[in-house]
Amino acid sequence: MSEKLWGGRFSKTTDEMINEFQASIGFDRRMYREDIAGSLAHAEMLMRVGIISEEDYQAINAGLRDILGQIECGEFEFSTELEDIHMNIEKHLTDAIGDAGSRLHTARSRNDQVALDTHMFVRHAVVEVLDHIRELQNALVESADANKDIIMPGYTHLQRAQPILFAHHLMAYFNMLTRDFERFQGVYVRTDLMPLGAGALAGTTLPIDRAFVARKLNFDRIYTNSMDAVSDRDYILEFLAAASILMVHLSRLSEEIILWCSREFSFVELDDAHCTGSSMMPQKKNPDVSELVRGKTGRVVGHLMAMLTAVKGLPLAYNKDLQEDKEGLFDAIDTVKFSLAVYAQLICGMKVRADVMRHAVEADFSNATDLADYLVQKGMPFRQAHTVAGQSVAQCIARGIWLRDMSLADYQKLSPLFDEDVYEVIRPETCVACRNSYGGTSYEQVESQLDAAEALMAEEHRIISELEAKQNLL
Amino acid sequence: MSEKLWGGRFSKTTDEMINEFQASIGFDRRMYREDIAGSLAHAEMLMRVGIISEEDYQAINAGLRDILGQIECGEFEFSTELEDIHMNIEKHLTDAIGDAGSRLHTARSRNDQVALDTHMFVRHAVVEVLDHIRELQNALVESADANKDIIMPGYTHLQRAQPILFAHHLMAYFNMLTRDFERFQGVYVRTDLMPLGAGALAGTTLPIDRAFVARKLNFDRIYTNSMDAVSDRDYILEFLAAASILMVHLSRLSEEIILWCSREFSFVELDDAHCTGSSMMPQKKNPDVSELVRGKTGRVVGHLMAMLTAVKGLPLAYNKDLQEDKEGLFDAIDTVKFSLAVYAQLICGMKVRADVMRHAVEADFSNATDLADYLVQKGMPFRQAHTVAGQSVAQCIARGIWLRDMSLADYQKLSPLFDEDVYEVIRPETCVACRNSYGGTSYEQVESQLDAAEALMAEEHRIISELEAKQNLL
Amino acid sequence: MSEKLWGGRFSKTTDEMINEFQASIGFDRRMYREDIAGSLAHAEMLMRVGIISEEDYQAINAGLRDILGQIECGEFEFSTELEDIHMNIEKHLTDAIGDAGSRLHTARSRNDQVALDTHMFVRHAVVEVLDHIRELQNALVESADANKDIIMPGYTHLQRAQPILFAHHLMAYFNMLTRDFERFQGVYVRTDLMPLGAGALAGTTLPIDRAFVARKLNFDRIYTNSMDAVSDRDYILEFLAAASILMVHLSRLSEEIILWCSREFSFVELDDAHCTGSSMMPQKKNPDVSELVRGKTGRVVGHLMAMLTAVKGLPLAYNKDLQEDKEGLFDAIDTVKFSLAVYAQLICGMKVRADVMRHAVEADFSNATDLADYLVQKGMPFRQAHTVAGQSVAQCIARGIWLRDMSLADYQKLSPLFDEDVYEVIRPETCVACRNSYGGTSYEQVESQLDAAEALMAEEHRIISELEAKQNLL
Amino acid sequence: MSEKLWGGRFSKTTDEMINEFQASIGFDRRMYREDIAGSLAHAEMLMRVGIISEEDYQAINAGLRDILGQIECGEFEFSTELEDIHMNIEKHLTDAIGDAGSRLHTARSRNDQVALDTHMFVRHAVVEVLDHIRELQNALVESADANKDIIMPGYTHLQRAQPILFAHHLMAYFNMLTRDFERFQGVYVRTDLMPLGAGALAGTTLPIDRAFVARKLNFDRIYTNSMDAVSDRDYILEFLAAASILMVHLSRLSEEIILWCSREFSFVELDDAHCTGSSMMPQKKNPDVSELVRGKTGRVVGHLMAMLTAVKGLPLAYNKDLQEDKEGLFDAIDTVKFSLAVYAQLICGMKVRADVMRHAVEADFSNATDLADYLVQKGMPFRQAHTVAGQSVAQCIARGIWLRDMSLADYQKLSPLFDEDVYEVIRPETCVACRNSYGGTSYEQVESQLDAAEALMAEEHRIISELEAKQNLL
Repeated sequence: MSEKLWGGRFSKTTDEMINEFQASIGFDRRMYREDIAGSLAHAEMLMRVGIISEEDYQAINAGLRDILGQIECGEFEFSTELEDIHMNIEKHLTDAIGDAGSRLHTARSRNDQVALDTHMFVRHAVVEVLDHIRELQNALVESADANKDIIMPGYTHLQRAQPILFAHHLMAYFNMLTRDFERFQGVYVRTDLMPLGAGALAGTTLPIDRAFVARKLNFDRIYTNSMDAVSDRDYILEFLAAASILMVHLSRLSEEIILWCSREFSFVELDDAHCTGSSMMPQKKNPDVSELVRGKTGRVVGHLMAMLTAVKGLPLAYNKDLQEDKEGLFDAIDTVKFSLAVYAQLICGMKVRADVMRHAVEADFSNATDLADYLVQKGMPFRQAHTVAGQSVAQCIARGIWLRDMSLADYQKLSPLFDEDVYEVIRPETCVACRNSYGGTSYEQVESQLDAAEALMAEEHRIISELEAKQNLL
Repeated sequence: MSEKLWGGRFSKTTDEMINEFQASIGFDRRMYREDIAGSLAHAEMLMRVGIISEEDYQAINAGLRDILGQIECGEFEFSTELEDIHMNIEKHLTDAIGDAGSRLHTARSRNDQVALDTHMFVRHAVVEVLDHIRELQNALVESADANKDIIMPGYTHLQRAQPILFAHHLMAYFNMLTRDFERFQGVYVRTDLMPLGAGALAGTTLPIDRAFVARKLNFDRIYTNSMDAVSDRDYILEFLAAASILMVHLSRLSEEIILWCSREFSFVELDDAHCTGSSMMPQKKNPDVSELVRGKTGRVVGHLMAMLTAVKGLPLAYNKDLQEDKEGLFDAIDTVKFSLAVYAQLICGMKVRADVMRHAVEADFSNATDLADYLVQKGMPFRQAHTVAGQSVAQCIARGIWLRDMSLADYQKLSPLFDEDVYEVIRPETCVACRNSYGGTSYEQVESQLDAAEALMAEEHRIISELEAKQNLL
Repeated sequence: MSEKLWGGRFSKTTDEMINEFQASIGFDRRMYREDIAGSLAHAEMLMRVGIISEEDYQAINAGLRDILGQIECGEFEFSTELEDIHMNIEKHLTDAIGDAGSRLHTARSRNDQVALDTHMFVRHAVVEVLDHIRELQNALVESADANKDIIMPGYTHLQRAQPILFAHHLMAYFNMLTRDFERFQGVYVRTDLMPLGAGALAGTTLPIDRAFVARKLNFDRIYTNSMDAVSDRDYILEFLAAASILMVHLSRLSEEIILWCSREFSFVELDDAHCTGSSMMPQKKNPDVSELVRGKTGRVVGHLMAMLTAVKGLPLAYNKDLQEDKEGLFDAIDTVKFSLAVYAQLICGMKVRADVMRHAVEADFSNATDLADYLVQKGMPFRQAHTVAGQSVAQCIARGIWLRDMSLADYQKLSPLFDEDVYEVIRPETCVACRNSYGGTSYEQVESQLDAAEALMAEEHRIISELEAKQNLL
Repeated sequence: MSEKLWGGRFSKTTDEMINEFQASIGFDRRMYREDIAGSLAHAEMLMRVGIISEEDYQAINAGLRDILGQIECGEFEFSTELEDIHMNIEKHLTDAIGDAGSRLHTARSRNDQVALDTHMFVRHAVVEVLDHIRELQNALVESADANKDIIMPGYTHLQRAQPILFAHHLMAYFNMLTRDFERFQGVYVRTDLMPLGAGALAGTTLPIDRAFVARKLNFDRIYTNSMDAVSDRDYILEFLAAASILMVHLSRLSEEIILWCSREFSFVELDDAHCTGSSMMPQKKNPDVSELVRGKTGRVVGHLMAMLTAVKGLPLAYNKDLQEDKEGLFDAIDTVKFSLAVYAQLICGMKVRADVMRHAVEADFSNATDLADYLVQKGMPFRQAHTVAGQSVAQCIARGIWLRDMSLADYQKLSPLFDEDVYEVIRPETCVACRNSYGGTSYEQVESQLDAAEALMAEEHRIISELEAKQNLL
């Protein structure tokens, strides 16, 4: 006999294959805590407004907590036949406590129930992501601070452009992560919307109290339109979009670390724990973790694409297509959390090879802009100064020397504005120290950035703590 | 002779084909106002900190305003040879005012200049989008208000589910747009970051005042890391993500309107202005506008995917790949603005066929939930009530009648809890009126939604006005 | 002690978390048959060219077949520590048969080994997909044949356009699937490339015989460049692209079936087995299967996007990012096979409501083109005829009648070319029968299509059988 | 007065804004040759089957050829009011030749007309792409041939792995392009389907001869189902998928060239024509072309995603959403052709720095595998040999020497199998020469690859010529 609870109208049992095709228990079981917390709040509300009796509520409460215990110690048996986490739990509850269990579903539908669970799950995941972002920011600040005086070439077009501080380079990623943090805060705000009470699509005829449920589950806002509540997947799309942008940031960091680990750059050495070897080439030390994170960027972007495609063109309200929202989301959550966590470790374990970076700065023309700026400060229009600097570089290349090796006489043939002080100006330390405009690479500016970062992370910590407290629902 | 300003080092002129391949003037000319406003602020700052003389500044100011005039009256000749909007303007300026013009580029690079222009352009576009969102919301509220009492079937799985108010259905879209508004506000905040002064990547050695430029151009925040400033494309990605989600909303509305315009539904009639005919079939009246908007959703999603792919795996700082950021962005801006504008009109012109909707509600079982709720309120556990309601429907189907046609005796055979008042309960008006839970479809709740919507739109109006004022830079 | 086989160079064991992050055994274990078949062929080749002894080969052969047995009866224990399917099997083999086992990896690398396994896996999956395509085509032909005379409205812009045969409509999908079949044949050809022997990236110094391995494993072609062999993921991208297009086809069919199941259309009734009910609304019969398939389209498109993003910008040869190729691929394979299989069933079980379709054709202006064509055949230029037909429709609409109800006198006021025979011309049967151009909807043309379909499916069957025989490798 | 040809039924003129929104003349004018060629064939067929008179045909023929001339010399005025290329041409024709012009549209609809034009356009574009692919292959072969003896490090994980020939590396890309060529041949086959005669969706009542039109326009196949003919966009999706994979290949080549141009690698020097300088840093020589191509990969992938999203979930037959098929397609065609063309030039102009590559091979452990293979050939099991080679590398690293610097005595302490001949084995030339397995990097194998490439390109040339001849339709 079919266990399907909507089976009354049907004369055939659902084909086994199809049953499996549409069952979601394989992945939505991850939301068991949210489902139970939501049901507890719902039941308490039903009791308070008089829809169920206090006895029923107590039975439901005890029964659900019992199921929670069973699941957490691995004793609960999930059944594909029962389709999803909601029916699995409800069926067990009814088997255990009888009639009272079958009253739990009063004034709600699976449509608003699954929406509630997913909102709570995403909200919680966002808080975890925020925490991981902050941890990676912390690792970046620590590495920047520990390597504060190291000069490296700054690149544009992967060509050496100007000398910069390694710490300045790392702090660019800190800033990307700050925006990621902000973006995920926005995701939180727009996830923190309570859908329960929307019923199947139109609300309910029963005198429920949605505000009570919202308070109980720490929601700041309630959906004001029931059809929107059951068909909205914005918060998932927005999570995936924010996750995609974050992963693109990590893909850029990964690309750089892979470059820096190459023999050609040799700017850093990773901890053995974050590398692997080759089954064929014993000398290899591969930056696998960075490669994997770079590769997994595609995965998260793919999940975003999948969901945008799935929702496109769906009429209101709930359609089964929307069930496709969870697997990609869960995988994106895991991927983002993991990538951030592993990178916090990797950055901490990364040894910076100051000597190699320094040599790369010395043997280069990345101080050519400083030569041009020198002439500008002596009064030459910028475009002309740029041309003279270009001619100097061209002469050096032709003679196989660097700018520091060119004689003053030769410089003065190109412009009488050159003087002995030019040699000081083109020293890497001077180049770096002089780029002291706000946000520039100078020692002073980078020090300011690090101070501001500490303050920002303290504020982030406060925000996270506050949000974490709200997730504690069982 | 090559006009390339970086041509000093090169012995060959750039191949013509490649020149065209990499020139951006074909699309970045749209940013001429931003480029000029940015240069004016930069020049004024250079003067104030003493890098250029007051005479030079005055010449630059007059020269740029002259160019602005030329462009706006169509007299300015853009050259592909000069690659981009920045060089086109600067070259004309230098031709017009001589040396002073060549001093304008002091202490900036094309990397931070193009970033500045694009930030201002996107910021402005966001404000326009916000305004269009509000206008469409307004159209929805007006239509909802004008058709406040019309009952239609609410659908899940495109199956009639429960009677709802047409106004309630429209207000679901109002709520989606409210979240779009919020999301674009977030885009504004993260676009409102001033990059100028970052130089090519590392800041500048000259004593610039970035805060002055930021104030002059109404930026609330300044990039605190120069490498981040020139390589960040987050604001474009976030714009495209918000635009994609918004277009997905419009694709859903489009799908519904296309359905409602079909002979089978016949729920609405569009104004002739928003339809077209067929060259072959004279009786056709096609909802082309809705189809186009639904189709253009793909376009915007495609631009998001394009940009995520382009930025993925790029090392710091600027890479030429990033030039790919504009065409998709501009097209997305146009598409979103257009789609919102055309929908505001379409909704205003749409005639709702109350009679057809009403008939669809009558001849249906979408009041079956009410039958179940009726039994629940008489004390039957929900799951059991659900079964009884299912049996009632099954009997009616077998006999070719509706629930209202079944005799009380027949009802009572299914459950003694049924009484005469059941017929009132299953009338569409009652079904609607009784779904009076917060956010439900009842007359009262919908009235509340409309009131709240008015208040919200007033607040949105205030926000838009404030932001609009900030975009006035020339 | 670390079990890592490349552990010699490292002083630290790999961090547990990272180990799990990069282990692929969780998903690549699906390829155990391919891995074993590949190893057997490799070992036999090594023996034949004299690299290993016959005894070693026999031991390896027996050992691998033993492992195969263990895996298939669920006795084999997979270990995450051993990272992937290759190391899991090799470690067990070496534990079981000693030194001979450690000689198996001679002259190959994990890079070419995993490429080989995946090629065989995809090749096999393609054959299964081809078979499922043919089965769905068969279901479509059977349903078309069984409902050969049923007339329904044909739609453009979801507006009724012209009367067509239901069978003609179904056969449009048959044709899409024919192209899918062709495309997957192309995927087969470009997957049927043997990579083994490419080594890590550069080939091997040992005197291997790649042609022997290719023959043994039924590969038609061998990679002619070793670097290409280990870094190529084209066959996966092409599989995902073909799968995406196929799913888009099924999404269109799904959309139509969902429409046809709506109360408004009521054109078909699905078998209960392919629908589900609602926990809230007992009268509902939801076309869940169609909705799920439509939703899963996004999933497959997402996997394509993920892989394009992952491979973009990777230098040669192997990079760890490429390990991201499998999960999305496997899921796409499952989704495509499942969707095709479930649709073959659904189409077979779908009841067509001829009466409803017929009524939809009667009460409509979809015969207006025929009115215009009638005038054209009497000598009126097409554009003028089109205008007259449009006027006729406009008159009917104004008077609330259909074209068949308008008097000859009224017709003749619009054009003297009208005669009594016009009424025959606008009968749905005539409209259908007369569209007898090649590929048109006439009874004759549809009959031809069905005949051609039978012949095509016979040819497809032959192709599938031939390819299936090649996959039999153990 | 409205010029709309379907205007009869409507009482309002279409709103101007919407007119522009839906007009396609801005982009579909590119297909004027296809539109005229199609109309000529259609008119000739109409005459031959007796639907129009010979005089009418002659007038149409002369009129269309006149319009062709006007368009090609820039005298034709396109009008947005007339929406698309088809109406623009037809209206001009009718204005010029009167009634005969209005008979041209007999027995066709814009739905099948636009499908015909686009098929011909894509078919032609595919042939051009094939030609560009072959040209880039030719450039690769020429560069490989000219630099045949140059040894460079082969990389996996961007770590030096084994010495390879530069020519071998280039030939990996040759092979990717060979698959691209095959894939685009498949696109040609599935584009080479004649849709005209499908009418709006159901065929036509007129006695047309589709086979004649197909022969006249060099189509090999004809759509066998009219609904499929007007709603099929597979050939566009497949073009975009093949284009995306091709661009991913070019993105990989771009990444490598960007790496090789960096100071750190310095493996190649590009011709000045394919680089640009910096407005700020005079010493810079940026590989802009490679960066742009890498960036434009996103663009093409985005167009694929856009189209998959647009078509997803559309019911049959034509929907206006399908008009979104052209802009992305046209842009993808341009991008692919341009990227291939520019790369053919870039590869020809690229100077390979043999000395730098050689040094990179010398100062490295990429010969460690050869050390292991040496031991294997002396009888040691592979896994053990791998360990010994790993220990050798570890010793060298500890002592700051390379493998060639380690004394025989030290080697023999690790294994008694080592002998004097080990030093020959680990020389780069030996390492390369010995990887003589089929498809390996040895001189002999690379020579074979080059020979095979010449033969393949000759065959490709033959195929292209044959297809080119078929595109000549005016």
